[in-house]
Amino acid sequence: MSDLGAIEATLQWDELVMMPDAAAEARGRQKAALAELSHREATSAAHGDAIAAAERAHSGDGCAWRAAVIRDARRDYDDAIRLPGELKAREATLGARGYAAWVKARESDDWDSFAPTLEELVTLRKEMAAACADDGVEPYDYWLDQFERGMKRERLEEIFSVLRASLAPVIAKTLEAPKLEHHPALVSGTFPEDAQERFCRAIATKMGFDFNSGRLDRSVHPFTGGVGPIDVRITTRYDENNFMDAVMGTIHEVGHALYEQGLNAEQDGLPVQRALSMGIHESQSLFWERYVGQSLGFWRSVLPEFHASFPRTKEEGVTAEDLYRYVNKASAGFIRVDADELTYSMHVVLRFEIERAIFAGEASVAELPSLWRTKMRELLGVVPDTDALGVLQDVHWSDGSFGYFPSYTLGAMYACQFHARAREEIEGFDALVENGDLAPIREWLRRKIHAVGSLHPSADELCVAVTGAKLDPEVYVTYLREKYSALYGA
Amino acid sequence: MSDLGAIEATLQWDELVMMPDAAAEARGRQKAALAELSHREATSAAHGDAIAAAERAHSGDGCAWRAAVIRDARRDYDDAIRLPGELKAREATLGARGYAAWVKARESDDWDSFAPTLEELVTLRKEMAAACADDGVEPYDYWLDQFERGMKRERLEEIFSVLRASLAPVIAKTLEAPKLEHHPALVSGTFPEDAQERFCRAIATKMGFDFNSGRLDRSVHPFTGGVGPIDVRITTRYDENNFMDAVMGTIHEVGHALYEQGLNAEQDGLPVQRALSMGIHESQSLFWERYVGQSLGFWRSVLPEFHASFPRTKEEGVTAEDLYRYVNKASAGFIRVDADELTYSMHVVLRFEIERAIFAGEASVAELPSLWRTKMRELLGVVPDTDALGVLQDVHWSDGSFGYFPSYTLGAMYACQFHARAREEIEGFDALVENGDLAPIREWLRRKIHAVGSLHPSADELCVAVTGAKLDPEVYVTYLREKYSALYGA
Repeated sequence: MSDLGAIEATLQWDELVMMPDAAAEARGRQKAALAELSHREATSAAHGDAIAAAERAHSGDGCAWRAAVIRDARRDYDDAIRLPGELKAREATLGARGYAAWVKARESDDWDSFAPTLEELVTLRKEMAAACADDGVEPYDYWLDQFERGMKRERLEEIFSVLRASLAPVIAKTLEAPKLEHHPALVSGTFPEDAQERFCRAIATKMGFDFNSGRLDRSVHPFTGGVGPIDVRITTRYDENNFMDAVMGTIHEVGHALYEQGLNAEQDGLPVQRALSMGIHESQSLFWERYVGQSLGFWRSVLPEFHASFPRTKEEGVTAEDLYRYVNKASAGFIRVDADELTYSMHVVLRFEIERAIFAGEASVAELPSLWRTKMRELLGVVPDTDALGVLQDVHWSDGSFGYFPSYTLGAMYACQFHARAREEIEGFDALVENGDLAPIREWLRRKIHAVGSLHPSADELCVAVTGAKLDPEVYVTYLREKYSALYGA
Repeated sequence: MSDLGAIEATLQWDELVMMPDAAAEARGRQKAALAELSHREATSAAHGDAIAAAERAHSGDGCAWRAAVIRDARRDYDDAIRLPGELKAREATLGARGYAAWVKARESDDWDSFAPTLEELVTLRKEMAAACADDGVEPYDYWLDQFERGMKRERLEEIFSVLRASLAPVIAKTLEAPKLEHHPALVSGTFPEDAQERFCRAIATKMGFDFNSGRLDRSVHPFTGGVGPIDVRITTRYDENNFMDAVMGTIHEVGHALYEQGLNAEQDGLPVQRALSMGIHESQSLFWERYVGQSLGFWRSVLPEFHASFPRTKEEGVTAEDLYRYVNKASAGFIRVDADELTYSMHVVLRFEIERAIFAGEASVAELPSLWRTKMRELLGVVPDTDALGVLQDVHWSDGSFGYFPSYTLGAMYACQFHARAREEIEGFDALVENGDLAPIREWLRRKIHAVGSLHPSADELCVAVTGAKLDPEVYVTYLREKYSALYGA
């Protein structure tokens, strides 16, 4: 089953990076054929019997890895067999229809054409949760758990209400302060794609991305795919007018890739050779992006290479401080994927509050556009003119992926807490970054998280194991407050 | 089953072109898992029943496509179910072991270390043929038929004896003549890889390769892979000191690719949406390589682009005639894959005679090295000093692919006969090539061969349909005699 999953991952990467356009329809059929065979294996009676036998043979025998393997196999198996074929079929067709409807609705800024399908998707997801969840589990909690093991609506409400209350004022204050000024050589002129690619590859290598068990290519939307730990494929994109997108995008994806390359090689093919959760995965990309890539020390360490890659910036006297300011610019925008470190979490809080309200029956699909605008005003103080720039901007709901958005901000908060701990445990953290000696940092993450994350039953429990405490949003708020008041003098 | 086959083809391409080294072992396991599932589908009772029902329902109802679909499905099914699991397992393990043994033996020029495994491979292939072939079919004929539908040892002996008798003297005479002199700008200096790639892409486009349903990449050994007709992937390689290898290699692979892209789109996923045989596939690559790429008219048509790609050649006055002479240089060498149009078929005659003798029990594996040297002297007048340059040079026997080699030369002869016919049916064939107007030629091949080849039960029958006659080796000998006596004045 793990081999079939690896094949699926390779096909998916190929589709997004290599496949010629004319193959799209056939590829859909190929993936469906493979999914059918995977499902047959995953739900076979023989497989169920093997899990039950393992549970009997090894209950309480003390091997933590074996226990985690059995736990995850059981979870996967129960999920697979509980889902009725009729719901599975509806999920596939409605997902495809929803995506097509969303693409069209966003293009023509036409919420009403998408709303009925979204309504059906909400209903379907509730029915799926009812069929698959353990007794007494709320539908929204079932879906949260799919992305973030052990996470519950109630705990998220606690966490996100702290952000709403404490972070919104920091954002408002920062955005009212005068904007940072940037070195003209950074904001104008072009940065040749080839030079960007060489610079990004050098950074990936410095971070410890292993090109012997991975690739770096180009795609429209950057992502990390392939098969960890032996075949991890990241992508980025290059814009001649904006080198920083490619650089930060590469650092972000390498952060994901290091998690995949650092998965426990001894658990080859077993269900625990996977990342623990979406939030923990995101914590690894954001750890590198924010606490390495957005630091002054990092830009000091790569400045010679940056100057060599873009000689114009050397001639015009760009300094590490210029780059530090440039990479940390903050502003309130409409679009989540373009948001910066400071404002990003407000986009997520908004989406969580909407999802929560819909699943609780407190909001209807019809009123989402106006709800969106109200919440944008409250949280970020800006309101988009169109639904295309608002409620229609993200792909996630188009196939019914409710409960996914919170992972982004959970990841940001885990990363912050991991970073605080790493600075205590790794001697001279800041000096290592400034010297470009990143191996001790990568090895710490590998040892504490990559190789052992999936032993834990939930992200919170991993967080306790790594940092001594559960997720605490105040740590994140304090970090942002201090960083941005220093940067903006606000 | 066709979708699973397409997945396998994509994985295979990925392995040769994209996959990082560390993934090799896991990929082997993934392919084995997929092969097991494919085999299960291909041998299922339900599939057998469906074929039998189709045979009953449609016997003699006059639809040629349907009849061919049923014929090929029956053939595939019988092959799959007749092969005992034990032989299939031995084929897999012995194939892998044979390949490893061959790599080592070639490196260390050590025939004795490979001979015992080759002996086992011969035995295995005889047993497989005995299990799978219809009654009364010779083992070697069974394997020939796998690559070249309907071909038999007896007919090959007829064909190849003509080559031995009539072509050997032409070769000897040509090679005794003074060597052609080449323009110094072609044989010295470097040809930048990027410029070669742009030139090759331009030629591929001119030939009609559809980049919307295909790709051109780089790999160590050029090949055509992927999934016809919608996702055809060719590769080539670039050597800065030898641009002609990349150019002719690209033309060759585009020839294969046009066959794949030209497969009948209406037969989507059915067994007839495949090339008829290896030999007919090779006829398409060689048609383009020899009757377009090696023609004077072709080099006249691409000369401006050639000069623009390699400005040095323009400054030094390279003409189309220089390029024509350069691409048609002939010499006797030890290595099949480096052989030119004139001498290539002798390498194949040699291998066929050896395979025939081994399957007839007239030669033993132990005596192959000396048999090789004897035949090289007879056929080409040169004898290699080592087995690495002789009997160990090719990969084919290392996994037991006996009966494959003849396809190369059958393809060359089909191509010659197709070309003779095309020049009769396509008005102004030579002028079209010289004007770079290749679409009418491509469309003729598509109509006559690509889209309909697999309707025919054998390559000979397709040859009759296209040219009015079965394969006739005299056509090929006459072509080579006339071409090379003109070129070499011999």
